[in-house]
Amino acid sequence: MGNNPKRVVVVGGVAGGMSFATRYRRLNQNDHIIVIEKGPYVSFANCGLPYYVSGEIENRSDLIVAQQSMLQDRFQLDIRVNSEVVAIHSDRKTVSVKWEDKVEEVSYDSLILSPGAKPVELDIEGKNNREGIFTLRNIPDVDKIVEYIDEKQPKSAVVIGAGFIGLEMAENLKLRGLTVSVVEKAPHVLPPFDEEMAKFAERELNRNDVRVYTGTSVVRFDGDVAYLEDGTKINANIVIMSVGVVPETKMAQEAGIEVGMRQGIKVDEKYQTSIEDIYAVGDAIIVKNVQTGEDTMIPLASPANRQGRQLADILSGKNKKNKGSLGTAIVRIFDLTFASTGLNERQLKDKDYEVMHLHSNDHAGYFPGATPIDLKVIFDPKTELILGAQAVGKKGVDKRIDILATAIKAGYPVTELQELELTYAPPFGSAKDIVNMAGYVAENILDKTTDTIQWYELENYQNDGAIVVDVRYENERNQGYIEGSIHMVLDNLRCEMNSLPKDKEIIVYCHSAVRSYNAERILKEGGFNVKNLDGSYALYEVAQPERIVR
Amino acid sequence: MGNNPKRVVVVGGVAGGMSFATRYRRLNQNDHIIVIEKGPYVSFANCGLPYYVSGEIENRSDLIVAQQSMLQDRFQLDIRVNSEVVAIHSDRKTVSVKWEDKVEEVSYDSLILSPGAKPVELDIEGKNNREGIFTLRNIPDVDKIVEYIDEKQPKSAVVIGAGFIGLEMAENLKLRGLTVSVVEKAPHVLPPFDEEMAKFAERELNRNDVRVYTGTSVVRFDGDVAYLEDGTKINANIVIMSVGVVPETKMAQEAGIEVGMRQGIKVDEKYQTSIEDIYAVGDAIIVKNVQTGEDTMIPLASPANRQGRQLADILSGKNKKNKGSLGTAIVRIFDLTFASTGLNERQLKDKDYEVMHLHSNDHAGYFPGATPIDLKVIFDPKTELILGAQAVGKKGVDKRIDILATAIKAGYPVTELQELELTYAPPFGSAKDIVNMAGYVAENILDKTTDTIQWYELENYQNDGAIVVDVRYENERNQGYIEGSIHMVLDNLRCEMNSLPKDKEIIVYCHSAVRSYNAERILKEGGFNVKNLDGSYALYEVAQPERIVR
Repeated sequence: MGNNPKRVVVVGGVAGGMSFATRYRRLNQNDHIIVIEKGPYVSFANCGLPYYVSGEIENRSDLIVAQQSMLQDRFQLDIRVNSEVVAIHSDRKTVSVKWEDKVEEVSYDSLILSPGAKPVELDIEGKNNREGIFTLRNIPDVDKIVEYIDEKQPKSAVVIGAGFIGLEMAENLKLRGLTVSVVEKAPHVLPPFDEEMAKFAERELNRNDVRVYTGTSVVRFDGDVAYLEDGTKINANIVIMSVGVVPETKMAQEAGIEVGMRQGIKVDEKYQTSIEDIYAVGDAIIVKNVQTGEDTMIPLASPANRQGRQLADILSGKNKKNKGSLGTAIVRIFDLTFASTGLNERQLKDKDYEVMHLHSNDHAGYFPGATPIDLKVIFDPKTELILGAQAVGKKGVDKRIDILATAIKAGYPVTELQELELTYAPPFGSAKDIVNMAGYVAENILDKTTDTIQWYELENYQNDGAIVVDVRYENERNQGYIEGSIHMVLDNLRCEMNSLPKDKEIIVYCHSAVRSYNAERILKEGGFNVKNLDGSYALYEVAQPERIVR
Repeated sequence: MGNNPKRVVVVGGVAGGMSFATRYRRLNQNDHIIVIEKGPYVSFANCGLPYYVSGEIENRSDLIVAQQSMLQDRFQLDIRVNSEVVAIHSDRKTVSVKWEDKVEEVSYDSLILSPGAKPVELDIEGKNNREGIFTLRNIPDVDKIVEYIDEKQPKSAVVIGAGFIGLEMAENLKLRGLTVSVVEKAPHVLPPFDEEMAKFAERELNRNDVRVYTGTSVVRFDGDVAYLEDGTKINANIVIMSVGVVPETKMAQEAGIEVGMRQGIKVDEKYQTSIEDIYAVGDAIIVKNVQTGEDTMIPLASPANRQGRQLADILSGKNKKNKGSLGTAIVRIFDLTFASTGLNERQLKDKDYEVMHLHSNDHAGYFPGATPIDLKVIFDPKTELILGAQAVGKKGVDKRIDILATAIKAGYPVTELQELELTYAPPFGSAKDIVNMAGYVAENILDKTTDTIQWYELENYQNDGAIVVDVRYENERNQGYIEGSIHMVLDNLRCEMNSLPKDKEIIVYCHSAVRSYNAERILKEGGFNVKNLDGSYALYEVAQPERIVR
């Protein structure tokens, strides 16, 4: 721009800080950009750390995304690693930087805070009398874990916290050969998911010999033994604590920068904090949920990247603003993939919404290798906006959630999903993709062509006298059926339906709720009072296994 | 509805006809639905047929999606296979149906035409003096091909036409062990793609020993030898003709139903033909291109399915209409996937549009198994609407094109692609997905942060005196470089750039145009007249291999 060069100081590298620094350099070749990073690396693959524990990512060097020397050469960045900003002096526009034993004062025209968030450390009785308890945030952390495993050869691991990182660690410790237990205080694993979808994860963990304890906590360590609330003892040669993160904002708070929920830094749409010329991006800031407009914190790499780049644009005179976050997430758990976007049912409590569960193959069933996807879609029956989606399956889960995340951001109505023209050839999809099917089902719900009940409502209906009719084939029923259901194969329903009572509620189900929807239509036009069990057996046997008769 | 039962006659099963029939039944339990199908099957996997030739789909029974008996029982359909409608008598609302030697007159209240489209048969000299020339539309066709291969053990195959089905047949014949050649009259294979993207397919075919002849035709057969225009001889023990399809509308035309382009049936938004109570869906109808509003024909399974279902809704009193088609398509060619959606550059000729080519990994590069995707996105610089996209890669191509197809249908602006929050964990994506990158690049193009030229423009720039600078590393340059380019590694550019002339146009390139974009920014602020080669070397070496120096 031909003006005097500015001094731009970035506190914290990785996603937010480095996206800012590199974009800012591209737009301002002459400014002085200083990146101050507490740890030894400014650009590393934090999302890849768990996979280095099992060796799936083989080389430690692969965790370093960009070498410091390259960043210095290519982007003319003044990078100072192992350096900590210990104070901000906004009155004189400097920061105090501690490096080894020295503290230096560095001046800034603009200060960019990208301090990130650090793992919560629970204070558990007996914790200080033992070794082998770790959290995971960066390369030094993973080095310690790998070193400990190599040296001590632990046989058993307890992962405290069953969020994304917790379950990734559980999988990778298991793949490394340890006996793994997971302890989650919440009623189910994977907190961003609803209960019934999280049950698929618990089943997959159990199938892979990972023991799951939900609704409880580790209350005490006695050496290598962890005690749960009810006295259960678990061997825990190594312990990983992954019970969430807190924004690392102590230094910002000491400088008088305003914080909000969970000590997150408050910023405006232009990423400015409460103090002039100080900006913040990444895991440490409070953002708006793009759907609800409410304050939230989304510690994920993608939003951090976007924010850093947007701030560089803003400080370069471009008209940009933070439009808020959606919080799309994905995790691989052994053979299954779990992904979600938008809001879940708990977040929608007391709101008006409709739910549907679909079960269909990732690609045409007649082509080899097809595997099922279970997809949950939540939508607003008035506005038809898609509120959230959750999916699980072996393949193609990322694709479906990405399509739905795009639809949410675009404000595309749920019934229009039937109009989407998605790629279809036998190896890749179906002529009617599960996402198209979601559009069809939503429309059927909205115009009352179908009347569905949810898995958690079924038992109440039965207690109130409803007749539950299983319309699957004989061989399917022989594998297991819902307690109290009677059997009437769909293809014979027109002949046999007259034996059903017209004065009672009838609930139909099949494997995936498609055939039972056909049954519902037949019975409805036959004058019966009928509802379809959404998700049907494929969902119910996972969500309520104790009610399956085998 | 309690009215008198209606007689609904459906001519032609499969996607359009059967989607209509089953949906119509669900909404109308009492009407009489008659499905008349010329062939032996009303529900089969036409998109799967090529894969049965190689045995990738092992069992012929897998090609039959739904058994006739099941469809009759479950949907109470009156299905008449091997029956041909030979005449429509709209005056008395009947059709004449030929079955074996008998012709029966069947009356209708509503008549649904779903006749589909049949493969074009070229009249090539010498064709009638030999056997082993096939087209592929249905199960009897594939039976004939497989029987011929089993019996005659042909060694060589010529596929005429390099569209989706032609290339699927080429791959499957090759996998079956034949020597395969493909002859395409157009200048490149895969007509829905633009030339430079289609070149990736030609390279993949060549890599797999499939010979490709473009811009020429088979003009004559002499026994098992096929002659091209220039006299080239190709062994052709078996010949597959797949040079496109024509709507099968002879019978409709004879009944006085109005047709339009390529003899396709004209229908209104409610699928009504020019004659009352006669409707049509599927490959035989003319639809509106959803982007241009122009008439088009899209013989694909997904639109046919949707149309059949919508017509069932319309005839059941629901307010539906045909909103037009986009024409998303995908094909696997050996190890690569090719997919496209929307318009290509040829369709946009004389329109104002911008193009960008991106090259990035399907998932985080530090996680094992990452493979590159080449993505082309075309957009309108005024409205920012995405006009079309084409992609090629080993994995994740379907996902990216589906996201972009969703964005197109939703009218989501190209620059907003940076705001999409897509699933990211190392096995599935990147913190900045290639689709997000497309949003960033589009914005850079629109606000002139970058100034790109296309691959086909480079040589002209060079002829006009432009200096082409390769900013890749030494080891990359040693593998090959663009003719006439000089070498200046990006990371040294700030020191070395003063040796470049300020009075000449400078074109920079790297492998994927990301580093050269950084070079462009450095040079631009250094006062040079510089442009970035869009797609850079990764695209250029495929699009213009004759200009690569190795």
